[in-house]
Amino acid sequence: MSVALEKQDAALKDAAADQRSRRSGGREARRAMRAAPLADDIRPVRAGLEGGSYGPLKQNDQERIHEAVLTLLETVGFANAIPSCIEALTKAGAIYADDGRIRFPRGLVMDTIKKAARNFTLHGQDPRHDMLIQGKRVHYGTAGAAVHLVDVEKREYRESLVQDIYDAARLVEGLDNIHFFQRPMVPRDIPDPLEMDFNTLYACVMGTSKHVGTSFTVRENVQPALEMLYAIAGGEENFRARPFVSNSNCFVVPPMKFAEDACGVLEACVDGGIPILLLSAGQAGATAPAAIAGAVVQAVAEVLVGLVYVNAIKPGHPAIFGTWPFVSDLRTGAMSGGSAEQAVLTSACAQMAQFYDLPGGSAAGMTDSKLPDIQSGYEKGITDVMAGLAGLNLVYESAGMHASLLGFCLESLIIDNDMLGHCLRCVRGIEVTDEALSIDTITEVCMNGPGHYLGNEQTLRLMQTEYFYPAVGDRFSPKEWNEKGRPDILQRAIIEKKRVLAERFPRHVPKLLDDKLRARFGEMIKLPRSGMGG
Amino acid sequence: MSVALEKQDAALKDAAADQRSRRSGGREARRAMRAAPLADDIRPVRAGLEGGSYGPLKQNDQERIHEAVLTLLETVGFANAIPSCIEALTKAGAIYADDGRIRFPRGLVMDTIKKAARNFTLHGQDPRHDMLIQGKRVHYGTAGAAVHLVDVEKREYRESLVQDIYDAARLVEGLDNIHFFQRPMVPRDIPDPLEMDFNTLYACVMGTSKHVGTSFTVRENVQPALEMLYAIAGGEENFRARPFVSNSNCFVVPPMKFAEDACGVLEACVDGGIPILLLSAGQAGATAPAAIAGAVVQAVAEVLVGLVYVNAIKPGHPAIFGTWPFVSDLRTGAMSGGSAEQAVLTSACAQMAQFYDLPGGSAAGMTDSKLPDIQSGYEKGITDVMAGLAGLNLVYESAGMHASLLGFCLESLIIDNDMLGHCLRCVRGIEVTDEALSIDTITEVCMNGPGHYLGNEQTLRLMQTEYFYPAVGDRFSPKEWNEKGRPDILQRAIIEKKRVLAERFPRHVPKLLDDKLRARFGEMIKLPRSGMGG
Repeated sequence: MSVALEKQDAALKDAAADQRSRRSGGREARRAMRAAPLADDIRPVRAGLEGGSYGPLKQNDQERIHEAVLTLLETVGFANAIPSCIEALTKAGAIYADDGRIRFPRGLVMDTIKKAARNFTLHGQDPRHDMLIQGKRVHYGTAGAAVHLVDVEKREYRESLVQDIYDAARLVEGLDNIHFFQRPMVPRDIPDPLEMDFNTLYACVMGTSKHVGTSFTVRENVQPALEMLYAIAGGEENFRARPFVSNSNCFVVPPMKFAEDACGVLEACVDGGIPILLLSAGQAGATAPAAIAGAVVQAVAEVLVGLVYVNAIKPGHPAIFGTWPFVSDLRTGAMSGGSAEQAVLTSACAQMAQFYDLPGGSAAGMTDSKLPDIQSGYEKGITDVMAGLAGLNLVYESAGMHASLLGFCLESLIIDNDMLGHCLRCVRGIEVTDEALSIDTITEVCMNGPGHYLGNEQTLRLMQTEYFYPAVGDRFSPKEWNEKGRPDILQRAIIEKKRVLAERFPRHVPKLLDDKLRARFGEMIKLPRSGMGG
Repeated sequence: MSVALEKQDAALKDAAADQRSRRSGGREARRAMRAAPLADDIRPVRAGLEGGSYGPLKQNDQERIHEAVLTLLETVGFANAIPSCIEALTKAGAIYADDGRIRFPRGLVMDTIKKAARNFTLHGQDPRHDMLIQGKRVHYGTAGAAVHLVDVEKREYRESLVQDIYDAARLVEGLDNIHFFQRPMVPRDIPDPLEMDFNTLYACVMGTSKHVGTSFTVRENVQPALEMLYAIAGGEENFRARPFVSNSNCFVVPPMKFAEDACGVLEACVDGGIPILLLSAGQAGATAPAAIAGAVVQAVAEVLVGLVYVNAIKPGHPAIFGTWPFVSDLRTGAMSGGSAEQAVLTSACAQMAQFYDLPGGSAAGMTDSKLPDIQSGYEKGITDVMAGLAGLNLVYESAGMHASLLGFCLESLIIDNDMLGHCLRCVRGIEVTDEALSIDTITEVCMNGPGHYLGNEQTLRLMQTEYFYPAVGDRFSPKEWNEKGRPDILQRAIIEKKRVLAERFPRHVPKLLDDKLRARFGEMIKLPRSGMGG
């Protein structure tokens, strides 16, 4: 600060202190006021805020990408379709050729886009957590299949367990800026694929009443899961009316081949009433073109094939346009989830979903860093805020993830919730109304007022509704920080994690119902009662 | 990852290894290739990339802000003008009234905007660092007046010294993604204002050949500085032709009052040929309205007054539209530089500069966190990338800053250089050409090729020109990271800082010239030769 600014600053601090002592209660009262939860509709940030103020692709770029996609679907198509898939697709108008590839006429693709489900709700077990997936409404959530849990106290990676999934779900249950919970880790303590799929889902739906996403290894694993979900919903009809679980489905092995097992899962989920996240996870420079535009083209082409597939089986079944390309570090071929290229790639995918007016989901918030550090902060911040500003409907992987999806960290989940609050506040943008333009306020303060805005009616009013405050983020002055023993954000997150995990045992699934599930599935349920609050 | 994806991943790793062994030299050769510097015009990121793909304000919002600004300048105007300012402004058409305020008719403001300098260059001592300030071209740099240096090894704040300023300048000299160096700290070891101003500037211009920004406390301090600058330039005419220093000038005490000392400095700098950064540093909720739109209105009004002032003294003198409002944490009244509100506020200011087609500068990259940690990472990342995407010409404070401008950190400077590389890569955006759309590449790989893009000609070509690689950022796999002793980014930055500071003693100002300066200014120069490499 210049000397003039320093003087101004000192004067302001005096004025602020003065205001504080004059206003009834002062700083402590305002702190208490902040601690009280706000009504949902006046909170500074919330699920479903509208993005769209950023977009790396111009309209003409989007049209060219679309045109390239149609060309590829007509001429290259997909390999490795399973018989049921070939049957459904050819019946719908796709062409199965001698070279074993199935190709898609433009009319079929365009017709599918026109008729596909859009503007639908992804439900929570608790309707407060329902997400209307529409336009440029933004929701942040977890995802992934990390094989490690990051132990920040020991600074080491250990294998992830089913208890970790349940713990992550319980944390997410109380983190306002994480709107859905797709399973972020695989339970390495449950090697059997059927038991792994079943327990992953069980840990998720018992841990949180928010919308859950999960995977299945093979078609046969869907049935027991459906039985559990129908039971929790109080009947199949209830689940079909408000499906609170979606299936994250890697139906494609990029470039342009069907994943046979995943196709079986897809068919079973559509049949059972589970919404599908059509996930194309190519990696630019490895399984997708290194050119960012080309990676978008391939991802869009692949997901449109999935959309044709779902709609061929069941017209209008809810499906998420999951163009989800990753990025390679081209020096090594390894994935780089925290890269800048990832940020623009994901944002471009958000725009392509909007181009088709389809519900879009893609990945951001990944980082290459192994621990919650400054690198993970900026990599997560940049990718997550750009995805939100681009109006991506569902930002997967947005919290907790490290090491380019190989490690998940519970402390990061808590810190990232703050960061996502920042992102949402950025997505909310700037209100420009006569009142907000503040001509009268400025005039009054300058001409008749105290020369500052500290006690101004406008300031007090906007404090709660327009400004976002972090929960664990630190805004102390260096002096306060020093006096308080130089607190560390990671230490605060560790303490908060331990507090929540010791106290929060969600009971949205009543114990009686859980007893019934345990009676029905017996040994199949591996998460011990002791880990669920007894 | 699903099992299908895992299989795919394993197959890819095999293929990648295969490619590596087949291509001459393999991974090490590619690493060596990366280590060689690229020609400036094919580097993936560089100074002056064009932003503009993000903007929180719609066109109509900008027009309403402009209209509110004109109303305020007509009706409220400015208090506290010094006599020379009153004389210049009234001569230009402003109206000085009985209430001591000076008001600005619309015609005068619009005329000034029309005639003001735009599309000019901010020079470096080395022409390689010249910055053309135009349109939505983005440049990142430092700024500030921190009173502390952050000692990351001791985790403490100590008073900043003139040597720290010189060291920061030396580091910036070699950091490609930091394009200019405005003095980030005040030398607390030099209490006398004249000596402080002089030595601050001396430390900056001796430490880096990039464009420098600095402040002066009072008018009288400008003359000796000019004498030094003219000497370095090899004559007054040379400096006036290529001024490599600009004056960061807080001519306004918000709301809407002149800062008397700074006005004196402004007049002396205009007279001496130094470009002016017209800096309005209100703080929303304290010295500016809490409504974000209102804070923008006030900042624009204030800077336009500065523009009228500069152009009244010397028409067409280069001035930067420095709408630079900060944000309060309204719970305490303290500044929150890392807040989300700051990110949207700064981006809106970038748009208003573009609205007037004036060279814009504002602040981003500040953080409330005291140390380089995950919070500082996401706060810096979010604010810096949004400022860049908004096409802000000069992003001040973008690197090294902590504790809402109270602490500066040399290690963060090094890490932030990586982060700004990410930001610039995001600003660069996505190239959509026939080649980039990759129809042929995808077709070839799927129909006739190996089924992946690892060895593809396109991949190898784009590796160096389209992908940004961090210098200290970590992309190891958890396994490699573990084998390498779990390296920490902060440790890497500490080592790099020490290496550079031990080795780099810039000599763009020849020793002979420095001898002359020391002979001329004698005791006035406080930075010892020993701290400058002897």
